[in-house]
Amino acid sequence: MLLNETIVALATPPGSGAISIIRVSGPHAIEYTASVFEGRSGIDLRDQESHTLQLGFIKDGKRIIDESLVSVFRGKRSYTGEPTVEISCHGSPFIQQEIINLLLRRGCRAANPGEFTMRAFLNGKMDLSQAEAVADLIASDNAAAHQLAMNQMRGGFANEIQKLREELLNFASLIELELDFTEEDVEFADRDQFQELVFKIQKTLSRLIDSFAVGNVLKKGIPVAIVGEPNAGKSTLLNALLNEERAIVSDIAGTTRDTIEDEIAIGGIGFRFIDTAGIRETTDKIEELGIQKTFENIQKSAITLLMIPSPVALDEKAKNEMIVEISRLKNRFPDKPFLIVVNKIDLLDEDQIKDLEQSLNQIAGTDLQFISAKQKTGVEDLKEKLQTYVNTGALRNNDTIVTNSRHYDSLLKAQEEINRVQEGLNLGLTGDLLAIDIRQALYYFGEITGEITTDDLLGNIFANFCIGK
Amino acid sequence: MLLNETIVALATPPGSGAISIIRVSGPHAIEYTASVFEGRSGIDLRDQESHTLQLGFIKDGKRIIDESLVSVFRGKRSYTGEPTVEISCHGSPFIQQEIINLLLRRGCRAANPGEFTMRAFLNGKMDLSQAEAVADLIASDNAAAHQLAMNQMRGGFANEIQKLREELLNFASLIELELDFTEEDVEFADRDQFQELVFKIQKTLSRLIDSFAVGNVLKKGIPVAIVGEPNAGKSTLLNALLNEERAIVSDIAGTTRDTIEDEIAIGGIGFRFIDTAGIRETTDKIEELGIQKTFENIQKSAITLLMIPSPVALDEKAKNEMIVEISRLKNRFPDKPFLIVVNKIDLLDEDQIKDLEQSLNQIAGTDLQFISAKQKTGVEDLKEKLQTYVNTGALRNNDTIVTNSRHYDSLLKAQEEINRVQEGLNLGLTGDLLAIDIRQALYYFGEITGEITTDDLLGNIFANFCIGK
Repeated sequence: MLLNETIVALATPPGSGAISIIRVSGPHAIEYTASVFEGRSGIDLRDQESHTLQLGFIKDGKRIIDESLVSVFRGKRSYTGEPTVEISCHGSPFIQQEIINLLLRRGCRAANPGEFTMRAFLNGKMDLSQAEAVADLIASDNAAAHQLAMNQMRGGFANEIQKLREELLNFASLIELELDFTEEDVEFADRDQFQELVFKIQKTLSRLIDSFAVGNVLKKGIPVAIVGEPNAGKSTLLNALLNEERAIVSDIAGTTRDTIEDEIAIGGIGFRFIDTAGIRETTDKIEELGIQKTFENIQKSAITLLMIPSPVALDEKAKNEMIVEISRLKNRFPDKPFLIVVNKIDLLDEDQIKDLEQSLNQIAGTDLQFISAKQKTGVEDLKEKLQTYVNTGALRNNDTIVTNSRHYDSLLKAQEEINRVQEGLNLGLTGDLLAIDIRQALYYFGEITGEITTDDLLGNIFANFCIGK
Repeated sequence: MLLNETIVALATPPGSGAISIIRVSGPHAIEYTASVFEGRSGIDLRDQESHTLQLGFIKDGKRIIDESLVSVFRGKRSYTGEPTVEISCHGSPFIQQEIINLLLRRGCRAANPGEFTMRAFLNGKMDLSQAEAVADLIASDNAAAHQLAMNQMRGGFANEIQKLREELLNFASLIELELDFTEEDVEFADRDQFQELVFKIQKTLSRLIDSFAVGNVLKKGIPVAIVGEPNAGKSTLLNALLNEERAIVSDIAGTTRDTIEDEIAIGGIGFRFIDTAGIRETTDKIEELGIQKTFENIQKSAITLLMIPSPVALDEKAKNEMIVEISRLKNRFPDKPFLIVVNKIDLLDEDQIKDLEQSLNQIAGTDLQFISAKQKTGVEDLKEKLQTYVNTGALRNNDTIVTNSRHYDSLLKAQEEINRVQEGLNLGLTGDLLAIDIRQALYYFGEITGEITTDDLLGNIFANFCIGK
């Protein structure tokens, strides 16, 4: 955490590409880079203005390593808030390494993960919650997660906390002022006004704490369990959903990660389909769904899609067994929504569909969707139904949503302290006793925005960043 | 190939990272980007000077997609030679795609592979051989390949061809002038001087054509076959070499490609160790080495390491069989250098080593290296020996080396035509006949530098580039 060191790292994704960027930040960033840079017309990098670009050669003595474009950022105007140079070189891993090695020999140190952003925080360019949002922004892979991170990076969440903190700090000062005049029994802090503020803080804290469930799910993708027999058409359905929507995250060749195999953005919100592979191997009948694996998946999910291939459901005995099975599942998970998806309706005639609809309506209500995944009938309706299970009202209204579990913890602790202040007020406690709890609540607020930090805390936060950020 | 279109592509490697760059080039690059960019202090991108950077928001209407740093390059001063904007955004695949989609909606077209470099060529920013060197530079993963690409990109090769071409063109004009005066029997082109030029061109062409073998091998890595029994210690040796040297190409996390598993840079030159896995499965004795697979690998290689675990060689009968086997191999491949590597000398005492050295010296001469891969004894000497097999004199002397098979083909064809001109001169052919072959030679020179191109040729060359370059 020594800000007097100049750090260097590759800032673009590793690998080959047209361009790579090597970032240098610290007091000697411009000086060190100037010592390996030969501008086109013999210009000196040290004379260049902030926010300008120079084309030239990166040289190790006489040996040319690359022809690069070098940007210079001066003073407080850089990302980190300290002198910064970005070297835009050819995207060869060999060249990247050669340039980084050269700068290390010139006096730079290899940057730790997130160290550029940590410096931006330490230099007052952003508060801690904004710095944390940078990592979320980079990891965002759907519109909802992206908007949450963007809002947080722009300070939405921190501003709200900051405002409450200031008001509370104001009262704390007044109450502490009373302590100097204890013998005169004065009240600088109006208790009614203070009560009002405490109510307001409690309300805000509750709202923020409640938003975490939504925020977390939006950030990570809504977990959806798909259960059903192997031939129910799960893969066909996923493909049908995927064809239209998956392009959002995977249009760029090479960006598709193996792990999003079953992650699909619908209406800008990520849905994470939980693999129920376990069932496929151990059972081939709906009645046997009641195995541990399926239960676990349903428990982990926000929504369960119960897929039934319609022809199976036509048999009267099978239909009854199925209805019993669905009832059992619903009873077992009373809080979990089940969407019954009847697939392969292309194999049925209209009367058969009507008959099936009637029997399933009793058990499923509106949580029923007839589809043909193969012919893509009903898939649009299914997508709309899936979205209705998600409470995205807050997102649409631009409300602050908490997505970070560290913030959630601090909020819970602040809530506890504020409740204690409330109790104190009810009991008519004296200012000195109230002040202790108020200070404690302020501490937890400060933890969120970064006014209160420890090296350990910072280390933990930035260790999860990629190198170069 | 329409230069009036504005193209857009991701220029950094795909995936997540701190920063990604989206490149926009074409007549409307600045205008289109300005329409989605909101600068910090309400500045207009269209008013900005070349080679400047602006921080601001990329917005789709009111929706903020990202906070980005945007560089503007005007007129001929950009990489492509046309107005260019580089958007340095947060390295999330989602954000990359959102920004690209937004620019596509504003009127950009998705760039084809290599299209930025092709435009640089078409706009006269570089000749064709320099453009081709860009792809080589990005692919370079050792010092030798890097230097070759760098030399070519800086025009070394093209300049030489260009100079010859101009001299030849000069003579061609004089000879063609003679055609206008055929009845007067004048010779504007001095035949002796011309003969001299033809000699010079022949010499240069020979040198360049010969350099291809070296160039190709340096670019792709020197192929080295390692043959020997399974327990000879091949893996231990590779690891010993690797520990010290491989770091050059794989220090950056994530850059190691699966295919370089057995590629090691020694003294800045890539060595490609050819897997002899086939032997392991089919034989466990040196005598049985003579299988097809081994022969093929030796044939493909520039050098063969014949590994022998020393204890095996101690047995008098085994030793003799081994010597016979080595002789047979050497006779079969008289042009291929064999380096006999006796491993596991840590298991021998000094007398045993001396004894072994004496018997093997007769058959191996100086191509003999005693090592203990496990204890890393003799590994440094082995590395030095490996390097002596490689003719890198040309590389050190900064001579022009041809690495591109397209150039090699054109050079061969030019050589054929020049030889025909030479024959013509010997036979005292008239100017009109000489002129035909000279024009043809000029054509092949022009193909290298790009003065002569076809859409097909350009298409083929740039199709091998990555998108964004």
